[in-house]
Amino acid sequence: MPDLDSPATYAAHDLRGMLAHITGLPEQCERAWLESAGISFPEAFRKVTGVLILGLGGSAIGGDLLRCLIADECPVPVVLHRDYGLPGWVSERTLVLACSYSGNTEETLSAFGAAANAGARLFAMTTGGRLLQRARELGAVCYCYHYEAQPRAALGYSLMTLLRVMDRLGLVRDKSGEVAEAVTVMRSWLTEIGPEVAVTNNAAKALATRLYRRLPVIYGAEHLAEVARRWKGQFNENSKSWAVFDVAPELAHNTIAGYQSPARLAPLAHTVVLTAPSLHPRVQARLQFARELLSSRGFASEAVEGRGQSRLAQALSLVLFGDLVSYYLSLLYGVDPWEIANIDAMKRRMGAA
Amino acid sequence: MPDLDSPATYAAHDLRGMLAHITGLPEQCERAWLESAGISFPEAFRKVTGVLILGLGGSAIGGDLLRCLIADECPVPVVLHRDYGLPGWVSERTLVLACSYSGNTEETLSAFGAAANAGARLFAMTTGGRLLQRARELGAVCYCYHYEAQPRAALGYSLMTLLRVMDRLGLVRDKSGEVAEAVTVMRSWLTEIGPEVAVTNNAAKALATRLYRRLPVIYGAEHLAEVARRWKGQFNENSKSWAVFDVAPELAHNTIAGYQSPARLAPLAHTVVLTAPSLHPRVQARLQFARELLSSRGFASEAVEGRGQSRLAQALSLVLFGDLVSYYLSLLYGVDPWEIANIDAMKRRMGAA
Repeated sequence: MPDLDSPATYAAHDLRGMLAHITGLPEQCERAWLESAGISFPEAFRKVTGVLILGLGGSAIGGDLLRCLIADECPVPVVLHRDYGLPGWVSERTLVLACSYSGNTEETLSAFGAAANAGARLFAMTTGGRLLQRARELGAVCYCYHYEAQPRAALGYSLMTLLRVMDRLGLVRDKSGEVAEAVTVMRSWLTEIGPEVAVTNNAAKALATRLYRRLPVIYGAEHLAEVARRWKGQFNENSKSWAVFDVAPELAHNTIAGYQSPARLAPLAHTVVLTAPSLHPRVQARLQFARELLSSRGFASEAVEGRGQSRLAQALSLVLFGDLVSYYLSLLYGVDPWEIANIDAMKRRMGAA
Repeated sequence: MPDLDSPATYAAHDLRGMLAHITGLPEQCERAWLESAGISFPEAFRKVTGVLILGLGGSAIGGDLLRCLIADECPVPVVLHRDYGLPGWVSERTLVLACSYSGNTEETLSAFGAAANAGARLFAMTTGGRLLQRARELGAVCYCYHYEAQPRAALGYSLMTLLRVMDRLGLVRDKSGEVAEAVTVMRSWLTEIGPEVAVTNNAAKALATRLYRRLPVIYGAEHLAEVARRWKGQFNENSKSWAVFDVAPELAHNTIAGYQSPARLAPLAHTVVLTAPSLHPRVQARLQFARELLSSRGFASEAVEGRGQSRLAQALSLVLFGDLVSYYLSLLYGVDPWEIANIDAMKRRMGAA
């Protein structure tokens, strides 16, 4: 197994500087929160009765996190749409937030065009591409940001900008305090789990070694449900590893019934439960019992607790932790965390179709 | 491996008659569609701007299927809520549909109480329990049905009743023709995949043998997205097997990047792609290419195509097929498809908490 404490390991595989993007998440969030402060909307945008967020993959996860972070307070439904076309309920009373890092995601462009036809209130956030062009042609509110990275590494921009949009429309309470706390908490945790901290004292490196040659199974709940999805996606894209996620309390109504077979999966699957003190006590109890059931069948599991008081800090600190675990795992597998050969191949294939 | 063509295999493990519930799905759908024809709502229910469906596990899957089946035509958002409490957008303009087979699902009862406090329009469907009692106290519209089974085996009731509710509120086109087609298509397919058809000619039995001692990975899309979730849940609960599901085109933006590791998962994972001719051609192309990528890494996959013209027929025929596969797999594992010891243990633990 490659040595996660040796600079040579990093130099050998992280060829395009993914590490700096991951460890830079606190700064990216801080900057994106400030930069988006000037977003403003026409008055008609304040009368929407629903929000539809368009996006896929690394461009969708900001919306996923937003949705579960503001579920308690947002007075209109927020729904993710990761497909061509549109759900039938989109109308001029719908705010459609199109998120595409490149601006060239074909499903998002399809949905954005349909949203324009439906008369929806349009917002686009992107770094450019056809989405920016179409949005300008359509008179949509545009937010064009500059951050050169893979889409998944621009999560600070996508989440903070969406939070700001909801804030500017009066759909959530002011988030400045939570953003500041999240940044502080992430910076603090980084001093314990960054690359300069040896594996013997580094919880993220240690978890990566336990996930090496295993199937990561990530459980989340409430505001951490979509953090579990983030972990899954980062293992896929950074580590080139299979990964699955599941959400409590739903998983207590089906998933746990299936721990019996196949028994030969037991040495392969390793479950990580994302948790926080603010989770509903009954949800925490269900997750704890799920771990006992896993253990009784010989499956390993562990819990990782988010830090901070606010939901945003708990969620983002666990995003940072998971991003680092997926990064370290990419080094253990000897792959470049940046490249996503299969997704690029898919795009080529679809371009030729 | 037990013999799926021997009556003794069935007698040994299917101790409470799960087979009859599975093969009876066409009749159950037909009956539930007819029985629910008399549901009526006060006029105020017609003015709702959103629908929230409460449910978990086997009581949620009807709502899941409904949501993706009517996404194109329903003029208001339909959102599933599988948790305690409520999202912040629920108001007197929200229709809350509480689904609990037993009527005693604690998360659903929690959410239902919160919905009453929020002034939502309340509907409850159940066979009894505390939900029925609370619903009557609150003056909710109640639909109490009679079908003795495990909640997951009452899917015909939950889906058909919800379809009827949407129909009665004018939120979808009349579904009578689609229901009739779905019933016919399921009956027809049953003659090819029922227990009396030998494994050599029986696609469902044959798939079960390929999934034996493997991890089922189910891919769906559009109206089949939640059918993939159904398959996953049925493998968990009927077969006592691990299973995962994923949805296209999203999976083409992350999951496919992760096929590389761990390589030792290759002999264990077996992917089933649920498909139908009506899927968006680009989604079909993405799923096809995902299968090629799996194959290039040594992972087996296959496609199963839904039958019928309507989305409902395609979805329900694949539900029936998957239910049978999960049933046959339970026999191969030598477990009673009915019992869900871990879920029962969870309920006992939570009751004692």
